[in-house]
Amino acid sequence: MDQLTDENGDVNVQQLPATDDEFGGVVVEMKEHMDSDVFRTLLKTSMSQWKLQGKKGIWIKLPINLSNLVDTAVKEGFWYHHAEPEYLMLLNWIPKSPCPIPTNASHIARVGAIVLNDKREMLVVQEKMGILRGVWKVSTGIIHQDEDITVGVVREVKEETGIDTEFVEVLAFSQEHNVFFGKSEVLFLCMMRPLSFEIQIQETEIEAARWMPLEEYASQLSVQEHGLRKCIKDLCLAKIKSGYTGFSPLPLTTDSNGNPSYIYVNKEDLKDFTIENLVSQV
Amino acid sequence: MDQLTDENGDVNVQQLPATDDEFGGVVVEMKEHMDSDVFRTLLKTSMSQWKLQGKKGIWIKLPINLSNLVDTAVKEGFWYHHAEPEYLMLLNWIPKSPCPIPTNASHIARVGAIVLNDKREMLVVQEKMGILRGVWKVSTGIIHQDEDITVGVVREVKEETGIDTEFVEVLAFSQEHNVFFGKSEVLFLCMMRPLSFEIQIQETEIEAARWMPLEEYASQLSVQEHGLRKCIKDLCLAKIKSGYTGFSPLPLTTDSNGNPSYIYVNKEDLKDFTIENLVSQV
Repeated sequence: MDQLTDENGDVNVQQLPATDDEFGGVVVEMKEHMDSDVFRTLLKTSMSQWKLQGKKGIWIKLPINLSNLVDTAVKEGFWYHHAEPEYLMLLNWIPKSPCPIPTNASHIARVGAIVLNDKREMLVVQEKMGILRGVWKVSTGIIHQDEDITVGVVREVKEETGIDTEFVEVLAFSQEHNVFFGKSEVLFLCMMRPLSFEIQIQETEIEAARWMPLEEYASQLSVQEHGLRKCIKDLCLAKIKSGYTGFSPLPLTTDSNGNPSYIYVNKEDLKDFTIENLVSQV
Repeated sequence: MDQLTDENGDVNVQQLPATDDEFGGVVVEMKEHMDSDVFRTLLKTSMSQWKLQGKKGIWIKLPINLSNLVDTAVKEGFWYHHAEPEYLMLLNWIPKSPCPIPTNASHIARVGAIVLNDKREMLVVQEKMGILRGVWKVSTGIIHQDEDITVGVVREVKEETGIDTEFVEVLAFSQEHNVFFGKSEVLFLCMMRPLSFEIQIQETEIEAARWMPLEEYASQLSVQEHGLRKCIKDLCLAKIKSGYTGFSPLPLTTDSNGNPSYIYVNKEDLKDFTIENLVSQV
């Protein structure tokens, strides 16, 4: 932060500390506590400067402990772009043209785990709460931001049922709208190979879990009357009886920490092509 | 809003207006302007009541024109759950147990459009801005929240190139992390059939667009050295030469407005199963 008073104690109005972004805008990351009146003065001065400099998108990141500055930023024309538990990101678009900056994340990514053992039994659970209480269903869960589908689905099955599994492929995915505060959801149905068999349920969320013969799963009214659960049954049968092919992950890039990202393809149908050398460094 | 003063003009402290949610919590939707001191008093009283009533998650939705109340809510122990341009949602979890409420949306959904004409030419564009400037690539874009993949990809191609297309199938998808403010991204690579051929570029975002022979696309260094673009080339070849099968949409449910949601499956491998009757009303 630039000094606010000079050696004579006079207020020396400076700009807010800002770094340029790659799209002709600036980012202000507020860190230290600041009085809202001081912030207002600095913001007004800074905005004038940024306008003169032809800056476009102006971002202000306010950690939650600087919530005293939110109102001031809004009064100066900023709006909310996104928020996480620990901060709020505000945005202002200076040009007269419409703001082309993408809105915040729009989708929740979920996984559904289809775990089949050698006896054609499927791992099913009953949830403790919510509208699906009492329905035998496959284990599902939300993928964390920054978490691979292949990793998240193994974690969810382990948490809910205690069963260790290995990721095989994505059998199908669905997209549904208006699932959680207006956001859409993509559900990845994953074929999983069980590596252990003894069930230990997660007491807080799961009422019961068991290995259920596929025929018993298929015969339930809650499956016959529900598109997704019916489709899960069909996918299982197609997999067992005729070798249904889903999408398998191929490593695509590795990030700076060495973590791979994946592209999911019909590997069977791509096998004559040179897919083994896809990985590029980003 | 309950009246704050009784007929004698005495302050009559009431609770904030709240509705129960289905998970044992309450939702407060603030709408009218309120002084922050009044809000503080009401919030304190309400919190005491909700604690006594054994409520769990407490949500406060503040429209942006009530940004004067953000600081008060935070000082009373609330944190940010998510924000949209027009509102901020704050959350407080009363029980001692860890808060099980999912975080906000974690993923951006993007589409990449692989548009091939009968001459084995692919529709490619060069973007005006960003790190891909000067690279011939397929048209890509962000899916809106509430927008189907099949719809969004047609829209993006039309916007960027003026070409009308028909959705064929999802050839592959990739998942990448830390793409935009820490959020992850799923990119759906869609096979598209062109319905028109005359290119009209979107002046604001697109520098150039053309139909490029697949061999020319494949021969570019920017394709050979990049996993995703290389994979796009292989997917095209596999599609043309050996009938690569991706995932096709089947309608799964219809919402209250009659809009379908889809599950994407390997339809070819599912064809012997009873998939035609999946649709259920939700």
